[in-house]
Amino acid sequence: MAHYPKKVYLNGEILDAENAKISVFDRGFLFGDGIYEVMLQINSNFFYGAEHLKRLAECLEKINIKFDVSSLPDTIEQLLQTCELEDKDCLLYIQVTRGIAPRKHSFPTNIEPTLLMYAIPFILPDINEKPISVVIAKDFRWHRCDIKMTSLLGNVMANDVAIKGGHYETVFYRDGKVTEASHSNIFFVKDGIVYTHPADENILNGITREIVIQLCRESNIPIQEKGILEQDINEMDEAFLTGTSTQIASIQKIDEHAYYEGNEPGVITKKLQLLFLELKNSYVS
Amino acid sequence: MAHYPKKVYLNGEILDAENAKISVFDRGFLFGDGIYEVMLQINSNFFYGAEHLKRLAECLEKINIKFDVSSLPDTIEQLLQTCELEDKDCLLYIQVTRGIAPRKHSFPTNIEPTLLMYAIPFILPDINEKPISVVIAKDFRWHRCDIKMTSLLGNVMANDVAIKGGHYETVFYRDGKVTEASHSNIFFVKDGIVYTHPADENILNGITREIVIQLCRESNIPIQEKGILEQDINEMDEAFLTGTSTQIASIQKIDEHAYYEGNEPGVITKKLQLLFLELKNSYVS
Repeated sequence: MAHYPKKVYLNGEILDAENAKISVFDRGFLFGDGIYEVMLQINSNFFYGAEHLKRLAECLEKINIKFDVSSLPDTIEQLLQTCELEDKDCLLYIQVTRGIAPRKHSFPTNIEPTLLMYAIPFILPDINEKPISVVIAKDFRWHRCDIKMTSLLGNVMANDVAIKGGHYETVFYRDGKVTEASHSNIFFVKDGIVYTHPADENILNGITREIVIQLCRESNIPIQEKGILEQDINEMDEAFLTGTSTQIASIQKIDEHAYYEGNEPGVITKKLQLLFLELKNSYVS
Repeated sequence: MAHYPKKVYLNGEILDAENAKISVFDRGFLFGDGIYEVMLQINSNFFYGAEHLKRLAECLEKINIKFDVSSLPDTIEQLLQTCELEDKDCLLYIQVTRGIAPRKHSFPTNIEPTLLMYAIPFILPDINEKPISVVIAKDFRWHRCDIKMTSLLGNVMANDVAIKGGHYETVFYRDGKVTEASHSNIFFVKDGIVYTHPADENILNGITREIVIQLCRESNIPIQEKGILEQDINEMDEAFLTGTSTQIASIQKIDEHAYYEGNEPGVITKKLQLLFLELKNSYVS
């Protein structure tokens, strides 16, 4: 169950959550004109925190919001101290919007971006052991899914369909190929080879996705960045989702097709889950 | 030049614009999870106001936000009185978001939608006589452009490219056919026949678009709801944009192709502009 944080960082102030308010003229509210990140502190380290901040900077640049992420680590530390989370496992949400201006589509100049951050206690299981079911849908979102933007109506609509149906996620296909899910990436395994869609404009290149590719390479598990045809998903041996809070989640069922019965994921999924756990336990930022 | 209104209606209160603030947990801010409308009061009547509110209700239903628009006319009247705009020409902006909840993609239940409205003085020219230039780009937005949502990053990015280049708009094509522009609809004229893309999921069915189709029918100007191929745009005789504040704007130039030199639009564009002016002058809601 999602819940509110106690404190919120907003444009230089740390406020009680109920007092954290922004102007209705913030372009984040009027246009969804912003970028966000979600990262996790595990064992007092932000897991791949530098990579998350790098992606934040890259996405901000893609939509031409000028914001220097280099001051964020100090601000994050201050926020965590205020929340008494500095050495606790927690989830950090960061959102940067273009800022406040009278409503007009084109980008205003000389305005200050809005920075929102909050942290909530969040303890990951060692391994995400719950087998999940997903549904599949034609991707109706925009064609710049590489940008982690807050204009997320398409994502939330798709996710809602999954949740209301008792599933974990909606997986998308575009031009006949499986791309990603509404807030996670997807991998397939066939004949010992791991497949995932290449990191082009059709997917958000997840940090966990990148880690899994790296784990495959280091462990000599063949990995190909190649989109699987939607018509071939039932022929796959294994399938799993990856994401910051999803970690590696074994897909038991996709629409009506079951990859396995019971609770035991496929061997490669299981192996990657164990490798990922090892990495988490040994990670030092 | 865009400017702020003096007063803002927000969830039952009328506030000074600088005090109109919403929670950072409003899903309009976190997810672009909302619908909006823009309508104009002309000669003390909201021009096609009922049609705008009907579209607002339809779009809210499409994304499953439960909100009754029937109380809006009274609230609008109250806002205009406070702003001393009740009998002045003005623009009214309306935004309804899903409401405030802890951040989670799927739709929360039992929350109250957020309602934002504001009015600013806005006087339309009798006829939009300025010939405009536009640029053309592949549509990279989502595939539900029939929903007038606030997740507008794609639209604002495209519009910004046009404005920064000294143009009025970016016109999109998808699957080879010209669809619409970033915040207006597009029409072409060829051999006396008017063409515009059908009102499917690729375009927002503009109220002015509908009016122009109706004007064509009433005046025996042949009209076809058919997407023009992007490769054929240079072969067209005339082109124009329509929109609530755009009215009917003659396209003088599309990318490097000029439809005409000088300031005089094509005969059918001109005729429709005059018919539209007549309609405005005789309109009673």
